[in-house]
Amino acid sequence: MKIFEEIESEVQSYARAFPRVFNKAQGSYLFDEEGNRYLDFLAGAGTLNYGHNNPVLKKKLVEYIMDDGITHGLDLHTKAKGEFLEAFKQYILEPRGLEYVMQFTGPTGTNAVEAAMKLARNVTGRENIITFTNGFHGCSLGALAATGNSHHRGAAGTGLGGISRVPFDGYLGDGIETTEYLDKVLSDSSSGVDHPAAVLVETVQGEGGINAASMSWLKNLELVCKKHEILLIVDDIQAGCGRTGTFFSFEPAGINPDIVTMSKSLSGYGLPFAVVLFRPELDQWKPGEHNGTFRGNNLAFVTAKVALETYWRDDSFAKEIQRKGAYIEARLNDMAAELGEGNFSVRGRGMMRGINCISGELASKITRECFKHNLIIETSGADDQVVKFLCPLTISDDELRHGLDIVESAIRLVCKGEDTVPSCMEKYSISPGEQCSRL
Amino acid sequence: MKIFEEIESEVQSYARAFPRVFNKAQGSYLFDEEGNRYLDFLAGAGTLNYGHNNPVLKKKLVEYIMDDGITHGLDLHTKAKGEFLEAFKQYILEPRGLEYVMQFTGPTGTNAVEAAMKLARNVTGRENIITFTNGFHGCSLGALAATGNSHHRGAAGTGLGGISRVPFDGYLGDGIETTEYLDKVLSDSSSGVDHPAAVLVETVQGEGGINAASMSWLKNLELVCKKHEILLIVDDIQAGCGRTGTFFSFEPAGINPDIVTMSKSLSGYGLPFAVVLFRPELDQWKPGEHNGTFRGNNLAFVTAKVALETYWRDDSFAKEIQRKGAYIEARLNDMAAELGEGNFSVRGRGMMRGINCISGELASKITRECFKHNLIIETSGADDQVVKFLCPLTISDDELRHGLDIVESAIRLVCKGEDTVPSCMEKYSISPGEQCSRL
Amino acid sequence: MKIFEEIESEVQSYARAFPRVFNKAQGSYLFDEEGNRYLDFLAGAGTLNYGHNNPVLKKKLVEYIMDDGITHGLDLHTKAKGEFLEAFKQYILEPRGLEYVMQFTGPTGTNAVEAAMKLARNVTGRENIITFTNGFHGCSLGALAATGNSHHRGAAGTGLGGISRVPFDGYLGDGIETTEYLDKVLSDSSSGVDHPAAVLVETVQGEGGINAASMSWLKNLELVCKKHEILLIVDDIQAGCGRTGTFFSFEPAGINPDIVTMSKSLSGYGLPFAVVLFRPELDQWKPGEHNGTFRGNNLAFVTAKVALETYWRDDSFAKEIQRKGAYIEARLNDMAAELGEGNFSVRGRGMMRGINCISGELASKITRECFKHNLIIETSGADDQVVKFLCPLTISDDELRHGLDIVESAIRLVCKGEDTVPSCMEKYSISPGEQCSRL
Amino acid sequence: MKIFEEIESEVQSYARAFPRVFNKAQGSYLFDEEGNRYLDFLAGAGTLNYGHNNPVLKKKLVEYIMDDGITHGLDLHTKAKGEFLEAFKQYILEPRGLEYVMQFTGPTGTNAVEAAMKLARNVTGRENIITFTNGFHGCSLGALAATGNSHHRGAAGTGLGGISRVPFDGYLGDGIETTEYLDKVLSDSSSGVDHPAAVLVETVQGEGGINAASMSWLKNLELVCKKHEILLIVDDIQAGCGRTGTFFSFEPAGINPDIVTMSKSLSGYGLPFAVVLFRPELDQWKPGEHNGTFRGNNLAFVTAKVALETYWRDDSFAKEIQRKGAYIEARLNDMAAELGEGNFSVRGRGMMRGINCISGELASKITRECFKHNLIIETSGADDQVVKFLCPLTISDDELRHGLDIVESAIRLVCKGEDTVPSCMEKYSISPGEQCSRL
Repeated sequence: MKIFEEIESEVQSYARAFPRVFNKAQGSYLFDEEGNRYLDFLAGAGTLNYGHNNPVLKKKLVEYIMDDGITHGLDLHTKAKGEFLEAFKQYILEPRGLEYVMQFTGPTGTNAVEAAMKLARNVTGRENIITFTNGFHGCSLGALAATGNSHHRGAAGTGLGGISRVPFDGYLGDGIETTEYLDKVLSDSSSGVDHPAAVLVETVQGEGGINAASMSWLKNLELVCKKHEILLIVDDIQAGCGRTGTFFSFEPAGINPDIVTMSKSLSGYGLPFAVVLFRPELDQWKPGEHNGTFRGNNLAFVTAKVALETYWRDDSFAKEIQRKGAYIEARLNDMAAELGEGNFSVRGRGMMRGINCISGELASKITRECFKHNLIIETSGADDQVVKFLCPLTISDDELRHGLDIVESAIRLVCKGEDTVPSCMEKYSISPGEQCSRL
Repeated sequence: MKIFEEIESEVQSYARAFPRVFNKAQGSYLFDEEGNRYLDFLAGAGTLNYGHNNPVLKKKLVEYIMDDGITHGLDLHTKAKGEFLEAFKQYILEPRGLEYVMQFTGPTGTNAVEAAMKLARNVTGRENIITFTNGFHGCSLGALAATGNSHHRGAAGTGLGGISRVPFDGYLGDGIETTEYLDKVLSDSSSGVDHPAAVLVETVQGEGGINAASMSWLKNLELVCKKHEILLIVDDIQAGCGRTGTFFSFEPAGINPDIVTMSKSLSGYGLPFAVVLFRPELDQWKPGEHNGTFRGNNLAFVTAKVALETYWRDDSFAKEIQRKGAYIEARLNDMAAELGEGNFSVRGRGMMRGINCISGELASKITRECFKHNLIIETSGADDQVVKFLCPLTISDDELRHGLDIVESAIRLVCKGEDTVPSCMEKYSISPGEQCSRL
Repeated sequence: MKIFEEIESEVQSYARAFPRVFNKAQGSYLFDEEGNRYLDFLAGAGTLNYGHNNPVLKKKLVEYIMDDGITHGLDLHTKAKGEFLEAFKQYILEPRGLEYVMQFTGPTGTNAVEAAMKLARNVTGRENIITFTNGFHGCSLGALAATGNSHHRGAAGTGLGGISRVPFDGYLGDGIETTEYLDKVLSDSSSGVDHPAAVLVETVQGEGGINAASMSWLKNLELVCKKHEILLIVDDIQAGCGRTGTFFSFEPAGINPDIVTMSKSLSGYGLPFAVVLFRPELDQWKPGEHNGTFRGNNLAFVTAKVALETYWRDDSFAKEIQRKGAYIEARLNDMAAELGEGNFSVRGRGMMRGINCISGELASKITRECFKHNLIIETSGADDQVVKFLCPLTISDDELRHGLDIVESAIRLVCKGEDTVPSCMEKYSISPGEQCSRL
Repeated sequence: MKIFEEIESEVQSYARAFPRVFNKAQGSYLFDEEGNRYLDFLAGAGTLNYGHNNPVLKKKLVEYIMDDGITHGLDLHTKAKGEFLEAFKQYILEPRGLEYVMQFTGPTGTNAVEAAMKLARNVTGRENIITFTNGFHGCSLGALAATGNSHHRGAAGTGLGGISRVPFDGYLGDGIETTEYLDKVLSDSSSGVDHPAAVLVETVQGEGGINAASMSWLKNLELVCKKHEILLIVDDIQAGCGRTGTFFSFEPAGINPDIVTMSKSLSGYGLPFAVVLFRPELDQWKPGEHNGTFRGNNLAFVTAKVALETYWRDDSFAKEIQRKGAYIEARLNDMAAELGEGNFSVRGRGMMRGINCISGELASKITRECFKHNLIIETSGADDQVVKFLCPLTISDDELRHGLDIVESAIRLVCKGEDTVPSCMEKYSISPGEQCSRL
């Protein structure tokens, strides 16, 4: 641990909540140097939808490396890229009737968002982009302007412009359709909200507190965009790749965004990777206009392709997510009802769920208690008031039940003072040092 | 090729100059699907200093993956990260008497630059950052403001502020020390150049046309920074990791930057990776203030550590770079003198070299001619007027000589109409289809 | 007219609606070169609250000029300035229990707004300023950012930053208290609305369509500002100086703004003049930090002082405004009810009133018809849909009734096709060419 | 004085250097309440080129007011405006072969600059504007971005963007033609200086320290603008209206700016007034796009017209200015040579002159000493190091000689310790309390 204290910057965050040195990972588990096993309900903040070091992907990845496949090829055409594009077309675009071209940006979500914002601005010749309360889109300056979090915004040290902020679904309370407000300011030439290039939205706000927009709100949002000839950008970096129960999070709303950003779980193996999808007629980029050294990560092409083939060949994986998601929802609703004293509420969609504990202090106590019992789980929201459930989509039913049991026990302890966790641990025998045999 | 035309965005650039589908790479060579071999003098735009798929690194990488080492761990402490930090301390920082802490940013150069700019602004409470004519620092909005290239700047679609532009070394012609101009505007409260947080500089401007600052200019720059209490940020993303003959490009100048950005060849294997180094007293980040999903790429930690152990344990590799760099310089000087008709000039340092052909059209003819003879080489500079030499630092003498021979023949053909390339090809027998036996 | 077409810029606006060459003015009337008289319900867009060339003020102005009083004195102390300050203290500040210091800015409203925004930003160290839908604050770049009108915003040609836009009172419909939304975004660290320096508000939005905030909304706004330690700036440039029935428009709300901007009718004589008032503890300006050649217009000091003495010595003038304002309101309500077919609505306070005709085309037809009958009256609002009543506060009852009769007849003609205006004109004998005998 | 301390803001500046209460003014003199007379070498910072309360202008102004001429008419056509336009055409534009249209902006210099910058940006569709070291253009946000002075810039509290700063003539030392640098960055697509809409320049920088550009530099600047299709804006607010010896300061350079801003002495009487002149083909304003309550000050039209008729009917006034200017120059050169110990230098053109005393402290001592002897004179420059001579252009030879004698004696006292001022005072009998009989 000494070296971390010595020369790693204070900017580190997760390492503070989970102060161990980890060295291995498999499926739903992380292991520390001392051999302790941790059930992972954080899963790379949504990057490990297929679990840690998924063996199917791993096999192909190692073969590719062993065979001296291209590792770094700038944006050259490579066989791995071509095969990924083919798979994406076959398994994702065609079955959904989507016609998108794909841009390989720098392999970070924030870079994909930067590219999407640039594209929208250039294609429309307008500057303003509508963003939402509690939105999170990244920390480079363009994406940061779109991000709502003052902790991150405050670090800019320079102006964050070109953005108008509008209330997300539900922000003004029940019964107020905030797309009507958006329509009003866009219809009013004196509203002070300049005619925008685009609307940039997450269908479920991950960092913002697992706020899920309703399907009707998303449809209305698309209508407002069409009415005012504004591009609709869905930032599907956290909610995409199956997290909410369908490959794209916006599918159930029946909308067709003009631009989609993807990253996190797209490589399937936790490798840095990000793309922007957009309608072909928007593809007005000049060669190299938005570039970067690592755009097009070939190792990620390899694993991404296998992930698509393995999990998205048909709808069985999606159905599994929906089934597990419903289970999580039911469990969380029970916890909120039984233990939340009328204050807790459950939010989210699919396997992207949260319990709003109102208080950040309370939520932190719960996650700290969970970690004591070898469950890694985090909070989100403006005040970290939401306990956030982002376990691998590939988690087994037993693991899922076990993790939820730990959370339930932790809430019970924190809220009711009833210490029931040990028995739970016993029952599921997730004890320190146990080897990862079952996987 | 069809899939690329069909669904890859028009933003692609290198793929236009080198329209092949590549599938393998080893050392100084790329191979296309048809088995053709290409000598690589582009090397991932400086990302492959140790060659493609360096076997020493590859071995450790595969072992790590096979052993289920952590692939994606957000910013958790991992064994791989700890070992990389130890190696960096032992082989890089301590021998150079440098005390830096390290921040793992999103794994792109532009993200490291964004973090460096934020840090400088927050620590000083000032907004302005001095940047230089022809500088290149990335394409996300904060870094893009610092970048000089109008092709990239024009894509922003929104204001690029918080920057003052100052002439780089040599920009105003011989005999004009541009740091004096900088000192003057900073000393003059009415100059309109606001007291800056930092100066952001490349010691050799890669994309800007391989413009190498002199050691005295860099020293003067540091003096001006100290005089005005401004942070000195060296963007060593392209020029660092040995490219100019020392690990950090600024070492020969004897300066101590306050902040250093690194990326490209840092992982050693072409894996996405970027860090910011800074003096410990500047480490005023709040936890998670600049974050990102892929900060801290564990596979990159593994290969980066092996690269440091293998190449930077002592000064022998640096000496090799200097030796080869001198050879390149001599060859380029000869070419310029013999074939440039008094117009060509040679620029750069170490193994980061260029021939300024004045005309972008001419330079492009030369690189296209090279590609016909299976040499991949690119141009840089505002008008793409500079043929840029960025071969792997590990290139063999034969390969290096051979590549330079191809360039020389290409220039001879383009400038003099003398078609000598075939004989050259014969002599060095780098013919299409040959297998990569020697490596 | 030829010279105007020849060399006056196309930027002219009012001259298009009222294409005459005017040469004299008195009280409520303008006269053109041909001797035609026009009743003025525009009154310098609120600049001529005391009528054109008010004789009391005129007498003192001429005496001052004849006596070689200082005309231009930069910001030197002058006798005229001292006397104005004394009068402002005696007649305005002290009776209202207000403690303000006064800054003389460049003699335009927009310059006062610029100064107010700077001051708020400097005192708080924050950048963001909350502004409202349909607000209008001026056309220089700082004030323009705060202005909602896209016609004006579109002319900036550069970014308009540092502002967050929030719905004004009533903007989201009845029953939605928009200060609650403001409170929510300010309480939510993830809302994306940065902690602001100030809220900048008009109590009645003049250019925005004569939208009058309710007293309870203004009180709530002040409460939200206090809760979040934000400065409250009232832009009283158009609504101040008695226009709404009290000297400051915010008096009936019982609030105490931290900063107030004034201009337009402050000189009383139509002379360029603008000031900013603020709490003494906010007076953190450095000498000359916000300067300008014409700050402190001595001729304006002279007339402003007389205006204060004459009209604000007691509350009789205020009561007269309220009485006339009630009459205007009653007349407009009748017109709306009888002629508006359920679509028209009346808005505003005191003698700052409007009829919202929904359609800009309709409103323009009405004002054009009025002009045919020698009434000068303009529209406002995003679509120019509001006929705006801004007659001099000193207007006689006969003139006021007459003007309203013309409007009523014009509406009747435009909406009902009943041409009753001639008789009306007869009755009040405001015929073209009549001399200004009564005044 | 008490009222000023009590309720005038700390932002006041000149009142600090000249702490008297002034009440009258005539020609070259100001008078305080106690009857003391002061010779005015500040002259409203260049606003009183025709002296205080010029009797010819005063007569027409009073007549106009007495006759109920329009005082405030928004931008309506008025007789006074028409007559001013005719006079401007006849006496200024036609004799110089200039074809400009005129825009009446808000009556402040900064507002004219804002309009000029907007126009240039809108006409070209570009954002960047080139401005110069030590330039001063005003304090509203758009103009402030163009201003170099950190004292003023620091008050913005928000980003000042859309500007690139370039060295003014002479800034890089003798022999370096800074227009070459400008040409270079504009020719270099990678310079980071975006293709600008316009260059904004003062021919003589007033606030910046009376730095006079050479005629050849101005010609070169125009050539660079033409070459790169950039608009040339001359800010002639301080240097125009005859100050440098011709009506427009740029006349001797033989250049034709695309846009010219004017204010300060344009009304001739110290009344707030500002205009922008531009080539007719640039007149792409939409109606009312840049507006303001006091644009078109009718009282200023009256006096401005008389000033043009009186002083610019032929070239005799210009010749007088040139003659006096030469005298000032000679006297200042003598002072610098005799008393400046090799450090002082003389700068400026016509009757816009300065002695650079290098030290702001020294210059302040000199001006304070002058004030003790009833001469009002100010400093300028980044460190207030330049004693600035801006006496009325109508000053008599005796008054001019007398003022210069006071300055000379003050320098002698401050620099040499020789107290010769009293005798000087005697000789010219400008003693405190003397009445203004001669005028």
